[in-house]
Amino acid sequence: MSTIVSLETDDVRFPTSLSLDGSDAMNPDPDYSAAYVRLRTDAGDGLAGHGFVFTIGRGNDVQVAAIRSLAPYVVARDTEALLADLGGFWRELVHDSQLRWLGPEKGVMHMAVGAVVNALWDLKAKRAGLPLWQLLARMSPAEIVDLVDFRYLSDALTRDEALKILEEARAGRADRETELIRTGYPAYTTTPGWLGYDDDKLARLCREAVGSGFAQIKLKVGGDRDDDVRRLRIAREAVGPDVRIAVDANQRWDVAEAIDWIAALAPFDVAWVEEPTSPDDVLAHAAIARAIAPIPVATGEHMANRVMAKQFLQARALGVLQIDATRVSGINENLAMLLLAAKFGVRVCPHAGGVGLCELVQHLSMFDYVAVTGTTNDRMIEYVDHLHEHFVTPVTIRDGHYVTPVAPGAGAEMLAVSIDRYRFTGNA
Amino acid sequence: MSTIVSLETDDVRFPTSLSLDGSDAMNPDPDYSAAYVRLRTDAGDGLAGHGFVFTIGRGNDVQVAAIRSLAPYVVARDTEALLADLGGFWRELVHDSQLRWLGPEKGVMHMAVGAVVNALWDLKAKRAGLPLWQLLARMSPAEIVDLVDFRYLSDALTRDEALKILEEARAGRADRETELIRTGYPAYTTTPGWLGYDDDKLARLCREAVGSGFAQIKLKVGGDRDDDVRRLRIAREAVGPDVRIAVDANQRWDVAEAIDWIAALAPFDVAWVEEPTSPDDVLAHAAIARAIAPIPVATGEHMANRVMAKQFLQARALGVLQIDATRVSGINENLAMLLLAAKFGVRVCPHAGGVGLCELVQHLSMFDYVAVTGTTNDRMIEYVDHLHEHFVTPVTIRDGHYVTPVAPGAGAEMLAVSIDRYRFTGNA
Repeated sequence: MSTIVSLETDDVRFPTSLSLDGSDAMNPDPDYSAAYVRLRTDAGDGLAGHGFVFTIGRGNDVQVAAIRSLAPYVVARDTEALLADLGGFWRELVHDSQLRWLGPEKGVMHMAVGAVVNALWDLKAKRAGLPLWQLLARMSPAEIVDLVDFRYLSDALTRDEALKILEEARAGRADRETELIRTGYPAYTTTPGWLGYDDDKLARLCREAVGSGFAQIKLKVGGDRDDDVRRLRIAREAVGPDVRIAVDANQRWDVAEAIDWIAALAPFDVAWVEEPTSPDDVLAHAAIARAIAPIPVATGEHMANRVMAKQFLQARALGVLQIDATRVSGINENLAMLLLAAKFGVRVCPHAGGVGLCELVQHLSMFDYVAVTGTTNDRMIEYVDHLHEHFVTPVTIRDGHYVTPVAPGAGAEMLAVSIDRYRFTGNA
Repeated sequence: MSTIVSLETDDVRFPTSLSLDGSDAMNPDPDYSAAYVRLRTDAGDGLAGHGFVFTIGRGNDVQVAAIRSLAPYVVARDTEALLADLGGFWRELVHDSQLRWLGPEKGVMHMAVGAVVNALWDLKAKRAGLPLWQLLARMSPAEIVDLVDFRYLSDALTRDEALKILEEARAGRADRETELIRTGYPAYTTTPGWLGYDDDKLARLCREAVGSGFAQIKLKVGGDRDDDVRRLRIAREAVGPDVRIAVDANQRWDVAEAIDWIAALAPFDVAWVEEPTSPDDVLAHAAIARAIAPIPVATGEHMANRVMAKQFLQARALGVLQIDATRVSGINENLAMLLLAAKFGVRVCPHAGGVGLCELVQHLSMFDYVAVTGTTNDRMIEYVDHLHEHFVTPVTIRDGHYVTPVAPGAGAEMLAVSIDRYRFTGNA
């Protein structure tokens, strides 16, 4: 028996804007940052739970303050009791009526809850000696659905329907674990496509991506239409006809503009169009999806919660759901989104990149493969080759696949030296 | 010429949970709070701009931190230049790419921007020697549309369409100003209906509301169905057949439950059903609205931004739009919502209560009457008789109407003695 003795936070910011890594039409100069949290116990086993919210710079201090405000909800509590009922803990925080007012269930406070929940998942997986994907994939269907809050979902997915999906995938779990460890999980790369890169660098990085075994790359678009057409032509020439090219507009367009602009890009065989407009706009995405079919709409990295995911699926407003590891309220809410996607037969291709998002989100796709959908067909996890060196268990890519992690934990733990070196000390 | 010399914040919390004022099915024990901001200049005129975000207790410190993080965007800037282009200032903050990541355009950071924007509006109105409603209502249509960001709105409302709405309402502005000052603006009251009140108090407060000239009251529902039926019967008997009774479920239900529950309440002649489910759920509200017609759905106090308002209107998911003064990003975004509602022919009945929300939001309805829709038909502003004594220019109610304010400013300024007395000093 042990107690959570501290919730520690750090404001960590990497000066990525200096190299234009991560530059897109909405985010010209991001400084990839983490509002970082560490939960320590008095168990004497040396294990701590690590979590974070990814941000892109200014405001990271506010995100840290939100996480710190949750200390009274975890410090001095019984570790084993918390870890045994993470569904209950999630409900306790997300439905805290006073905190809820600050969203509800969206934005800074919702993401803060997610970071704390994920730190507990990290601790739970470390204690179990398993990578998070495997811990989740070995839970019973009943245990898994207990983690999910079905409030506001019942018109699309009930607890019983979710249970049925998980029960049907139960056969073959062990075989898929073995297969996953053998082959890894398919990846695609956004490394070539940042808007700030010149044409030569774009072409070179495209060729390198193909050489590294990636079957799909992604280009940022939405800044200037002529530039987009030129860059897409360069990319298509560099990768050849068989590698898929997705494009990402990062919310730049209104409906009519999106449809027009995409028509100009369609001749280059576009794999999907990502974030064409506001991430809140279910109806606009549905209108765009109808207009650009058969090119699918992809979105999700800025989807505030499971209620938004439900509506995008109900309205057929997306063809690819891009869950994000730190946008919603942690693993629990992402499980809800995986189950919703499975119900609607829509593929999940997680958003990643930033700092640490690859490390975290791979566990969700791998769990999905083993215990929910049983397939990786047309599924891929985004990959960007930035900042992995700051993690204790960085992702590894081999032949265009994520190498399946076997180290215990959720992947969130950052090196202490990196935190010390990149701790933000400027004025907030 | 002057400069903004400081952005000061206060964490102000009133212990309202002790009396169960404000208790409803989702918020059993709110402590009405303000994350308060004050902008001072070196103009030497003694005028400061005041604004705040309303919260219900825990987390108010996080909201304060978010407001404080915006100091670099206003301090040391030219006051007159800022006040001359509040549309530009709004875009600068809301579209700041790094801050935007924390929403986008929702939750703690979005509301923080709103508080700072509103403090500038307060200062602008004080400098003009006009109440905010009158300052706005005397601006030209072109000046008004320049305040609005039409990004993501153009599939429902263009700048030209908004301009046309305002131009058409230009005739008669002066007459309506006079009429408004003479008669005030219709109000309805939620004072009788909090869930924590017993039946005798409910009946007494209902009779008092009728005696005070209110034509509509509102009851909180959604805790227990039998209790709701009993309380609605008591209220209907107390007010008689001619006073309207609205009900408010504060997001308690899923779709099927909402439709069932409302069927049990319908025999008591329900004026509207407020917040039946998640404020993010356009499609669920649309399904409920179709099922309970002709009883209208009302919602909006937790609507994150203008993009959500647009969709609720497009989907006919509400019949009454309840804008809130501090949920979205300030006056500018509320102007967008008023114009959207006018385009769709949907009435706006603002959410108020809490602390200071009546003082703020009345200006928006009054502006709407004079310069947008030209009517108060079926429109009302919510009124709750709590905590007005803490404001420099508290609202006054006469014969069921808000008395039109004539004091300069936006109504946000709290008494210094109240701030000092209720400044939160506990652990956050």
